[in-house]
Amino acid sequence: MNRQVIVQELPKGELTPDHFSLQERDMPVPGEGEVLVRTLLMSIDAANRSWMQGPTYREAVKAGDAMHTYALCEVMESRSDRLAPGDIVATETVWADYAVRPARGCEKLPSVSSLSHLMSVYGIAGKTAFHGLIGVGQPVPGETVLVSAAAGSVGGYVGQIAKAMGCRAVGIAGGPEKCAWVRDELGFDDCLDYRDPGFFKALRAACPQGVDVYFDNVGGEILEKVLFQMNERGRVVCCGAISQYDSAAPTGPRNLPGMVVVKRLRMEGFIVMDFAREDGNALRALQNWVAEGKIKVFEDVVEGLENAPSALIGLLNGDNKGKRMVRVAPDPA
Amino acid sequence: MNRQVIVQELPKGELTPDHFSLQERDMPVPGEGEVLVRTLLMSIDAANRSWMQGPTYREAVKAGDAMHTYALCEVMESRSDRLAPGDIVATETVWADYAVRPARGCEKLPSVSSLSHLMSVYGIAGKTAFHGLIGVGQPVPGETVLVSAAAGSVGGYVGQIAKAMGCRAVGIAGGPEKCAWVRDELGFDDCLDYRDPGFFKALRAACPQGVDVYFDNVGGEILEKVLFQMNERGRVVCCGAISQYDSAAPTGPRNLPGMVVVKRLRMEGFIVMDFAREDGNALRALQNWVAEGKIKVFEDVVEGLENAPSALIGLLNGDNKGKRMVRVAPDPA
Repeated sequence: MNRQVIVQELPKGELTPDHFSLQERDMPVPGEGEVLVRTLLMSIDAANRSWMQGPTYREAVKAGDAMHTYALCEVMESRSDRLAPGDIVATETVWADYAVRPARGCEKLPSVSSLSHLMSVYGIAGKTAFHGLIGVGQPVPGETVLVSAAAGSVGGYVGQIAKAMGCRAVGIAGGPEKCAWVRDELGFDDCLDYRDPGFFKALRAACPQGVDVYFDNVGGEILEKVLFQMNERGRVVCCGAISQYDSAAPTGPRNLPGMVVVKRLRMEGFIVMDFAREDGNALRALQNWVAEGKIKVFEDVVEGLENAPSALIGLLNGDNKGKRMVRVAPDPA
Repeated sequence: MNRQVIVQELPKGELTPDHFSLQERDMPVPGEGEVLVRTLLMSIDAANRSWMQGPTYREAVKAGDAMHTYALCEVMESRSDRLAPGDIVATETVWADYAVRPARGCEKLPSVSSLSHLMSVYGIAGKTAFHGLIGVGQPVPGETVLVSAAAGSVGGYVGQIAKAMGCRAVGIAGGPEKCAWVRDELGFDDCLDYRDPGFFKALRAACPQGVDVYFDNVGGEILEKVLFQMNERGRVVCCGAISQYDSAAPTGPRNLPGMVVVKRLRMEGFIVMDFAREDGNALRALQNWVAEGKIKVFEDVVEGLENAPSALIGLLNGDNKGKRMVRVAPDPA
């Protein structure tokens, strides 16, 4: 039998466990060109929630469907010469133990020591941190790198890569507990709580040589404050603007573009695909740093298919540190 | 005898002709290491006014002083082996027919067919346009280049250089008369009046392929509107933020940094000195384009030392088109 998590009812307001139910179905059978895959690790993302609100860049999830997900899977049975049993693939699938997928919709992955790393340090999070910091921010050893959302899945790697390159790494996060974790567990030189009324003063003290690269995940008021601390010819890596996404009346930093003119700054946006040609370099560098112990892999893994609903609900409430995923089955030996 | 324009009284509010008086003084005599120079062309800049308000990056002008200026001069008599009579130099001097200057404070200039060009197309204005557009904006033939303050001394060259490179050049200026001049005299493909209530719609129509490079001299609301029209991977050359300089409550574009993230834009500030190593290339390219008739030199030359006060007052009221200067004596043969 095959367990699936079904969307019982589409949420109108807040998502709750009652919107899901765990059901048993017959084992699916692959047709020509298809494969039967076993789910190993499912990625849990804020975007999952938006799929329940209607069609986005992909098909909407409907009531009665198994919940959609991006996952790492093992091929169990293949009716395609593109894939063989035992292959590890990344694919769009559903919250289930097993599923049938078209072989063309599966990307075969390299073998690594721990599969979860393909969703964190060697996945989108680590590659975004690497390409954004190195390709766009271009820090030089000795420079100061500041990063917001420093306890997030991208920000936590940005600071660690900066340290590994010989830069001073300073984080910004929400609340004293997260800040302590960024300092103590991830090894940043400092981490500042943006909710603290003394934030601006603390920022100056933490960056006595000014800021050379600001890796910005949030935009808004924090960006405005940071711009005053940027050094001449500094770089702002524009990775996200979380603070503005949910606002009815977004406010622009009042010192833009003035500070860009006066300090000759560069602000630049990017997406990780822009640097696909450099992915090989990124993975090699990240693997070396992990092997040398210079980068600590941090992941937020929830065990068990049955816990996927609460893992998603918790993520939407911001209770994760690092990349959240659900382990459905152990890594194959 | 030597005519000088003296600052009779420092202005408290608006500058008027009564703040100046034309006086005759004895011809000055150079000492060891000094030269006697004859003023040919004086640069008239908004910054001149700020020198009357107290010390800035330079000494303040006081009541009773001859008004300070940047000028091109001819060496008449030299007591330094650095310079010889007949040399053309750029120097800080005063509003006068003649002055004595330290030879070390004079920069010897190459000979060109028309000296005024060293203050416009081959001076700060032309070099700022060239380095900002080419070094920072990096347009490719066929792309659309948009520039604000298009009737200004920098903006007018930006659009002409863009055209010479095979780009579509669209300007933004204040009022229908200036816009017509930018189109008809400078040869831009189009020029839009930002005061027109239909400005945003006109902008979309004038840039049917979107905007690839925006050369921004103004910041503020115009920047906000332009950002919506930028193409993915577009570049914003941040040269100035005129609209914000005089404002008690500056407002930031509300779509920053959101648009930079979503469209993967690059916004970058610069000053002309950052590209000093490329000045030789800039001058060679500009001279070729002028010789080929692809770039039209436009200057705003006021004749006569006695008209310097009204030239400055008019500039502060925005009645110039292109680089304003005062001709005190004709170019030497």
